[in-house]
Amino acid sequence: GALGGLGLALGLWRRQAALAAARENEEEKELRQRFMAPPVSGLRELRRRRRELRSRMELLIMETQAEVCRALAALDPGASFAVDSWERKEGGGGISCVLQDGDVFEKAGVNVSVVSGLLSEEAARQMRSRGKSLKAKDGKLPFCAMGVSSVIHPKNPHVPTMHFNYRYFEIEEADGTKQWWFGGGTDLTPTYLNEEDAVHFHKTLKEACDKHDPKLYPKYKKWCDDYFYIKHRGERRGIGGIFFDDMDSPSKEEVFQFVKSCAKAVVPCYIPIVKKHCHDSFTPEEKLWQQLRRGRYVEFNLVYDRGTKFGLLTPGSRIESILMSLPLTARWEYMHTPPESSKEAEILEVLRNPKDWVH
Amino acid sequence: GALGGLGLALGLWRRQAALAAARENEEEKELRQRFMAPPVSGLRELRRRRRELRSRMELLIMETQAEVCRALAALDPGASFAVDSWERKEGGGGISCVLQDGDVFEKAGVNVSVVSGLLSEEAARQMRSRGKSLKAKDGKLPFCAMGVSSVIHPKNPHVPTMHFNYRYFEIEEADGTKQWWFGGGTDLTPTYLNEEDAVHFHKTLKEACDKHDPKLYPKYKKWCDDYFYIKHRGERRGIGGIFFDDMDSPSKEEVFQFVKSCAKAVVPCYIPIVKKHCHDSFTPEEKLWQQLRRGRYVEFNLVYDRGTKFGLLTPGSRIESILMSLPLTARWEYMHTPPESSKEAEILEVLRNPKDWVH
Repeated sequence: GALGGLGLALGLWRRQAALAAARENEEEKELRQRFMAPPVSGLRELRRRRRELRSRMELLIMETQAEVCRALAALDPGASFAVDSWERKEGGGGISCVLQDGDVFEKAGVNVSVVSGLLSEEAARQMRSRGKSLKAKDGKLPFCAMGVSSVIHPKNPHVPTMHFNYRYFEIEEADGTKQWWFGGGTDLTPTYLNEEDAVHFHKTLKEACDKHDPKLYPKYKKWCDDYFYIKHRGERRGIGGIFFDDMDSPSKEEVFQFVKSCAKAVVPCYIPIVKKHCHDSFTPEEKLWQQLRRGRYVEFNLVYDRGTKFGLLTPGSRIESILMSLPLTARWEYMHTPPESSKEAEILEVLRNPKDWVH
Repeated sequence: GALGGLGLALGLWRRQAALAAARENEEEKELRQRFMAPPVSGLRELRRRRRELRSRMELLIMETQAEVCRALAALDPGASFAVDSWERKEGGGGISCVLQDGDVFEKAGVNVSVVSGLLSEEAARQMRSRGKSLKAKDGKLPFCAMGVSSVIHPKNPHVPTMHFNYRYFEIEEADGTKQWWFGGGTDLTPTYLNEEDAVHFHKTLKEACDKHDPKLYPKYKKWCDDYFYIKHRGERRGIGGIFFDDMDSPSKEEVFQFVKSCAKAVVPCYIPIVKKHCHDSFTPEEKLWQQLRRGRYVEFNLVYDRGTKFGLLTPGSRIESILMSLPLTARWEYMHTPPESSKEAEILEVLRNPKDWVH
């Protein structure tokens, strides 16, 4: 009787435990397939709150990270991504994936971060590129910021550097209303100009934008040229792409769908260019010019980039993930000027006077 | 009669012209001996106004430039300094001397600039590290700024990088009163710690300071450790030296004499260290660590250095002279951490917790 009951209970418990273990195995399998690491908010929590935009955006940035890392790793079979999950003491955390010193890529980083906490009014104002006023309760604003950001520096000077970043912010005001906005962009920095590649890159981005509104690409293409401007050099960092910030209309759902299209366009706009040129031959002089252009990349990122500056000044931010964007190596020569009508002068001309690549 | 008089006049004129030519030759000879290029304000003007502090300071920075360039060139006989004199549209100009890719020095720049013009109240406020109020006439303040600044990046990882800068400012207020102040410093950035060198460097600076006031070295040593702080890394750029700004007491003459002593100490504090180590053998790993430290040097200069930031933001400033301070090459590795108790960890420890090298 009692012993039989105990046996039955034990059997039931065993079966339940086995089921739970199987469920966990399934989840782990799914995680391994879909993502580079378990999401910051936890898969169960993301499932539970699956209708909330925060959760959908977190899944999108996780998927984008995995998709890009896999596409890059497939082109550089000798190398592999180091994956670091990190926590932020003040709330949230992130996952950094970095491939360093591969055969094709000098340094490729794809970083996800999902952070939350309280912002000072001053910090909140700095977060928005156009300072909207925010009404804080006791001077503090609960916020949530998440994004995926990536910089890919290839070895071959005929393969351009690519950067993308898609991000979402929420700030809760004193009266409980939530302000939210998206930002992001994808842009290309070639060492040498290849018009066909430039057109392919911009065309792919334009198609992603046009599905949502034909006004978006021209507006965000110009914003990109304006943003990535190295003022003291009178040059842009690269040949552009798209860039936007503070995007909060027409609706949360529509902006999310737009951001999703942009994120999905990263692989098709860049990977074909890498494939096309990663075995191109190059001279030591071409490698040197690449290193000088890497120097300019460092100048832009450390002197002008809002994200980098904001990150470096924010207590508790993960410096290694922020400075992942810097190239493995860079060079500065005093008074370097390429000869007239050279390939080096050709790209400089485009960096000084941005062109329209698609109409 | 008339012809004889003409002959006499012609003879006189010829003699005067010959004397003037000889005088010019003498001046040119003196220039060649004393300076790297003719001073911005002209030698004759400097002679005419020889009692004014502006002229004496301009001569001091010109002499310092020449003295340092010659001492460096003597150690790197295969290489030579490129000398560029440049003018600033808004007033003044400068002389940049750069030795690049030598046997001993990767990049050595010694720059003099003497600029003048009108400052906005905002710019004038930014020029002083402690914001003193300045009363402008029509919002504009006539100013004069001059200085010598230098960064020496050697090739051998056992030879440290050295930086110095000595500068003088004058601003004229609405009521005609002139505000003036000096600033400057000399500091060392080794790749590996050599205690003997660190002590020699600091001791030489301390002796230069002590001649004027024993309170100066401790104060300016601490200011140096505080100033060259890479906040996001929690590290100083190097093992320090001295740094000061806004120095305007006890008197113009006494501060000038102090600055002169500091400028004269540059060669004796640094050159013996270069001589001692420039033929040291080194491994590829040591060269790599040097390149990573060069990356930190770039981070400090582009993110924190007030002089660089001010220069990049000032219209009409000569970018190539400002960014001369950047190394020829630098490197950024994701998550690089030297092993415990290594030579690399030893210098990091000192950069995180500055030491007193002399008492």
